[in-house]
Amino acid sequence: MSKILIENVKIITMEKQDEIISRGYVLIEDSLINLVEEGEYTGEREGLEIIDGKGCVALPGLINCHTHIPMTLLRGYGEGLPLMRWLNEKIWPFEMKLNSEDIYAGALLGMIEMVKSGTTSFVDMYFMEDAIAKACKNANLRGFLGSPMIGDFWKQQIDESIALFGKYKDDELVNVLIAPHSPYTLSMEALKQAGEVARKYNIPIHIHIAETMDEVKIISDKYNTTPAKVCEEAGIFENNRTIAAHCVHFNDEDIDMVSKYDFTAVYNPQSNMKLASGIAPVVKMINKGVNVAIGTDGASSNNNLNLIEEMQTASYLQKLSNNDATALSAYETLKLATVNAAKAVGMEDRLGKIKKGYLADIILIDFGKPHMNPPTDVYSNIVFSAQGGDVRTVIVNGKVVMKDYILLSLDEKEIIERANRVFVDVINR
Amino acid sequence: MSKILIENVKIITMEKQDEIISRGYVLIEDSLINLVEEGEYTGEREGLEIIDGKGCVALPGLINCHTHIPMTLLRGYGEGLPLMRWLNEKIWPFEMKLNSEDIYAGALLGMIEMVKSGTTSFVDMYFMEDAIAKACKNANLRGFLGSPMIGDFWKQQIDESIALFGKYKDDELVNVLIAPHSPYTLSMEALKQAGEVARKYNIPIHIHIAETMDEVKIISDKYNTTPAKVCEEAGIFENNRTIAAHCVHFNDEDIDMVSKYDFTAVYNPQSNMKLASGIAPVVKMINKGVNVAIGTDGASSNNNLNLIEEMQTASYLQKLSNNDATALSAYETLKLATVNAAKAVGMEDRLGKIKKGYLADIILIDFGKPHMNPPTDVYSNIVFSAQGGDVRTVIVNGKVVMKDYILLSLDEKEIIERANRVFVDVINR
Repeated sequence: MSKILIENVKIITMEKQDEIISRGYVLIEDSLINLVEEGEYTGEREGLEIIDGKGCVALPGLINCHTHIPMTLLRGYGEGLPLMRWLNEKIWPFEMKLNSEDIYAGALLGMIEMVKSGTTSFVDMYFMEDAIAKACKNANLRGFLGSPMIGDFWKQQIDESIALFGKYKDDELVNVLIAPHSPYTLSMEALKQAGEVARKYNIPIHIHIAETMDEVKIISDKYNTTPAKVCEEAGIFENNRTIAAHCVHFNDEDIDMVSKYDFTAVYNPQSNMKLASGIAPVVKMINKGVNVAIGTDGASSNNNLNLIEEMQTASYLQKLSNNDATALSAYETLKLATVNAAKAVGMEDRLGKIKKGYLADIILIDFGKPHMNPPTDVYSNIVFSAQGGDVRTVIVNGKVVMKDYILLSLDEKEIIERANRVFVDVINR
Repeated sequence: MSKILIENVKIITMEKQDEIISRGYVLIEDSLINLVEEGEYTGEREGLEIIDGKGCVALPGLINCHTHIPMTLLRGYGEGLPLMRWLNEKIWPFEMKLNSEDIYAGALLGMIEMVKSGTTSFVDMYFMEDAIAKACKNANLRGFLGSPMIGDFWKQQIDESIALFGKYKDDELVNVLIAPHSPYTLSMEALKQAGEVARKYNIPIHIHIAETMDEVKIISDKYNTTPAKVCEEAGIFENNRTIAAHCVHFNDEDIDMVSKYDFTAVYNPQSNMKLASGIAPVVKMINKGVNVAIGTDGASSNNNLNLIEEMQTASYLQKLSNNDATALSAYETLKLATVNAAKAVGMEDRLGKIKKGYLADIILIDFGKPHMNPPTDVYSNIVFSAQGGDVRTVIVNGKVVMKDYILLSLDEKEIIERANRVFVDVINR
């Protein structure tokens, strides 16, 4: 049995806002948290891997609820073009040429970036998720992976997802989702089928809804209603857990409607700003009881996978758009990336908190940096002052994947070089 | 004579967008850049301090055009309160108790944070700027310092600025400004006097204008016009160089009017978002020929002094608010923090570029991090992907202040501890 003791550490449990252990310890046994206590650990120390948390704050590993991880290869590619030219001339032609080894290389680059900024779980949508699953196993990251159903090939694509589900259904790290791309890129028949398959296998759905005004117009022209209502009509939400990226252009009726389902809206503030998509009505959704999580979207529209930075933007943008400096506090924002995200993926009783019996996904943030001082308000320093690079140590599923800023099981330099070679190779193909 | 050679480095000169030296060197002699060339340095190496720039990109040191540096002490203090309660109950009572030693301690904390995120010059407004000037000298940072004139004590305050100007007028690092706080906190007489003194001593003015709708209303009630027009009427802009923070609520007439003067609008996107102040019309101002720079504002409303992060938010917020994904490109954004900022402080012929004869304020950004790869678009990676903590080496006025992430002349740990002690001490005073 592997045992890890994190000691001398300030602990944010995310159980309640005022539940902060100013100095305590966490004992991890195999993949689970077995003790979270204030003070000194007085038990047996033999056989323990000790992590000294002095000067650090422990919090639950962050969960990125919407990304396209292999698109890390495309960071900064086609920058500055308007959206449709960017897609048509750059992104889609590049993606057409990708093989599973390229996708594996891009996924690993994204994964080391995520680990180094404190993300321990992510919800993905991309082609050849099998290659991404393999990268998850090698990187020891928790993935919720959905192969997109899009356009005319959705029958074949849904079969791929079912096969992937069969392959990984007992895996500790890899979880498979059903991923109908969006109401505007699929037929009603395909959307209905996605809902049915999700119910049959009890798999959550990962989908884009109401990202842009263009999408709202396409759907309105075709169905005379909203993207969210089309999904409801297709039975996507009925008895399914749904993780819906963006939800930027939800109207009040959409919000009321989704609040009745097991539905999570994933806020992607930086991508929505960069692509000029709009501002999701996050405060309104939370007030109406909708579960809201947070994602970075892919690195080709963000341009990084840094959830710590994303949280700051998330809160600031809601304060601005609600004309209320008290909106979406630091603590509420941290919930988007932890407890709310755990609920999104259906693991609220196992993930997103530092709590006995929960999975040991824990990060340590270094409060020794100048910009983290004075340490007056721990939540505000993490959400508003920190950088991704302040994450010092990362544990996923009871395994230390980064310690004192050093990745333990992956060769960072080699992964970066490989991804850079792949990028050039694909361009020249 | 001190000589520094930075070699094997990619160089962004900021002369033109396509002027990137893919591999070259910079030779620094004393405080000046003496050579910027492609390829290998073949001259005499004896007596040179060598900096190997392999894997790094050199760019002009960033210039933070609006901050209140000692407010770094107040980071996260009173978080979550509405604006007026935050000021009345937390910020102002705290500031009332500050002495010059506290201010020195807070300024040094802010300065090491700035150095570590690539800022080499800053435009400040705070009480007891003499203490901040001393910190600039010790930290070897370039400061443009203005003691605020505010309320009823403006005569005494302007005299303090004149005295400070006398003391530092030949200093290489410390530059003194005239800082009328804002049109809504000063009488017309005080504003007029600020303009006159600035002209008499040929000193730039640093002022807040049109930050909030409350300010616009106060001014409208009092003068039946806009904050910018009040400043014009007081002669603030006439034959003066003006650095105006915020300019969030400028209307089209304000923009047309300031475009005729030697005027810089300083965009503070994160502070304006966090305090729910609004979005400055940056693209419109640039299109009308107004010089626009960028600032972080103080760490109590941001909550950091990280210009690299601020640039990303700056660009994304303009894309969003202009509904145009191509608005304010990465290169244009980097100009806000370099060439435009140099123009703001009246040093466009000496600062803001890597160019022969310019002052040697240079930073090296580490492109070895996962999130900086692939290095497809160097501007986009710096502005959209980088973290402040990717700044590896910092040179100010020909002196290396940070090398390979280590501060050379300041004791980081001691500065942090002292500032934290001061914070607690002031609270308990």
